[in-house]
Amino acid sequence: MKRYEAVVVGAGPAGMTAAVYLARFGIKTALAEQLSPGGLLLQTCEVENYPGFPKGIKGYELADLFSDQLESYANLTRVQGEISELKIDGERKLLHVDEDWLEADSVVICSGVRHRKLGLPNEDRLLGRGISHCAMCDGNFFRGQVVGVAGGGNSAVEEALHLTKIVSKVHLIHRRNSFRAVPLYVDRLKSVKNVVFEMCTVISALHGEKELEGVSLKRLDTGNEEFLPLNGLFVFVGFEPLSRFLPAEIARDEQGFVITDTEMRTNLPGVFAAGDIRSKLCRQIITAAGEGATAANAVNSYLEHAHG
Amino acid sequence: MKRYEAVVVGAGPAGMTAAVYLARFGIKTALAEQLSPGGLLLQTCEVENYPGFPKGIKGYELADLFSDQLESYANLTRVQGEISELKIDGERKLLHVDEDWLEADSVVICSGVRHRKLGLPNEDRLLGRGISHCAMCDGNFFRGQVVGVAGGGNSAVEEALHLTKIVSKVHLIHRRNSFRAVPLYVDRLKSVKNVVFEMCTVISALHGEKELEGVSLKRLDTGNEEFLPLNGLFVFVGFEPLSRFLPAEIARDEQGFVITDTEMRTNLPGVFAAGDIRSKLCRQIITAAGEGATAANAVNSYLEHAHG
Repeated sequence: MKRYEAVVVGAGPAGMTAAVYLARFGIKTALAEQLSPGGLLLQTCEVENYPGFPKGIKGYELADLFSDQLESYANLTRVQGEISELKIDGERKLLHVDEDWLEADSVVICSGVRHRKLGLPNEDRLLGRGISHCAMCDGNFFRGQVVGVAGGGNSAVEEALHLTKIVSKVHLIHRRNSFRAVPLYVDRLKSVKNVVFEMCTVISALHGEKELEGVSLKRLDTGNEEFLPLNGLFVFVGFEPLSRFLPAEIARDEQGFVITDTEMRTNLPGVFAAGDIRSKLCRQIITAAGEGATAANAVNSYLEHAHG
Repeated sequence: MKRYEAVVVGAGPAGMTAAVYLARFGIKTALAEQLSPGGLLLQTCEVENYPGFPKGIKGYELADLFSDQLESYANLTRVQGEISELKIDGERKLLHVDEDWLEADSVVICSGVRHRKLGLPNEDRLLGRGISHCAMCDGNFFRGQVVGVAGGGNSAVEEALHLTKIVSKVHLIHRRNSFRAVPLYVDRLKSVKNVVFEMCTVISALHGEKELEGVSLKRLDTGNEEFLPLNGLFVFVGFEPLSRFLPAEIARDEQGFVITDTEMRTNLPGVFAAGDIRSKLCRQIITAAGEGATAANAVNSYLEHAHG
């Protein structure tokens, strides 16, 4: 069983920043990466609000820059695989990765979130067959076709904007009559010609056998239902925490996000959290990265005290 | 009296990031800048740990990139001048800047810190006459000469490293026998030839009339004192908050740093804080920027609720 002073779970902006800081503190660190480094950054088209890039940068380019910064630290090991279980055994923390176990003095949970589903019949079956959570990844499959976008937050509006440049028409389907997204994006989207705003409207059914053929729209003001033919549907109705591997004793909020203090400490000594997995109001690349650094600093203090 | 929905005090990494996010939320914002934008970034030589710049970047270059990102927002006003007073009058916040007052619905305090002094006689008189808090700014005045650096944290060790490339000899004077600075920097400094480590040693007196001529060193282990001739002395013995303009009712810790919750809210409704001015353990560019975004998000929630 390999032993580390710190194991960081997840290689998005929070996890990669925590890893850089831990490495620079001289702490023997493992960074557990399930897929390519970047996390949700890899599903982001244009990043305009990460400080230091006034002209904006593509999500995957920023992910590469973060990842390049991890090189050259001999005390940092990058472990490929999914952490399927975290066990707390007093001061020892044990992490199950594929067939193996890692032992750690401290853990930084940066496992992030995934897109929430609509919760409708056929949804799982049609995922990847017309239904997607990533305009960046899948937008090109629908070039010149008609797609729907479900949601009213930043993700929905930004991704809809991206899709308008590729598809022939976007139906933006939102349950409320106003947007949570920042006005800047909403204004941009309103200035585009090939968008139909389906406000106060929810998707009540998904249709199609081998692939998505359309959805039922329910108008919340009148109660009327109608069929809307669609080639694709992009779903951005919020996020849920990737927390299945966490033990029950880690304190979480009602939605399952991990609760920390201002130094990123959870309720368990030696266990820290940073980024989208945290219970908080603002989920951004820059906040995730900042929290990663703060968590690494708290790990360093913890290890110094634990080792006397 | 000019009125804003939000006033950000200070244009370091925290303040500039808060301003970008507020502008993008569509909030009518003023950013009060005392000097050139950048804050302590302008006194930093090489930044190696800001995610997104794997090859490192000069502090002033990163400050320029942050500042460039503020352009193009019509709802963001940049106000030049020092905020000398913040008055809380119920929901109204009043800020005194030069001869003028600004009125705001919300305030984000990002006024940062300044270097702490040694607290010795003659120190104020010799500041700028041999004594400095910025190797980046003043190092070149001592090319080929002998200088001291006081302190043992990251700033002291990083700045000493910078000075070794310019001066003939650096005496690093530190009261303890080990460093708080990250091992990476300490190791680098130890590999340099023109550094003398004066450990377990404090400066007990400053000598010189028109300019610094030397210091008295006191060895803490033996109690012995000796004179060390120096052309320059760079002092990095911690930071103190720039908080003189704040009203007494804002909750602060023992050292005067502003206490917030995880969303950057102070104890006063509509008053937020981000960056080095906060009571916290980790003061870094990336944490300041992340906190700026979180504070802006909290301002947005506050204004939405206040306005109904």
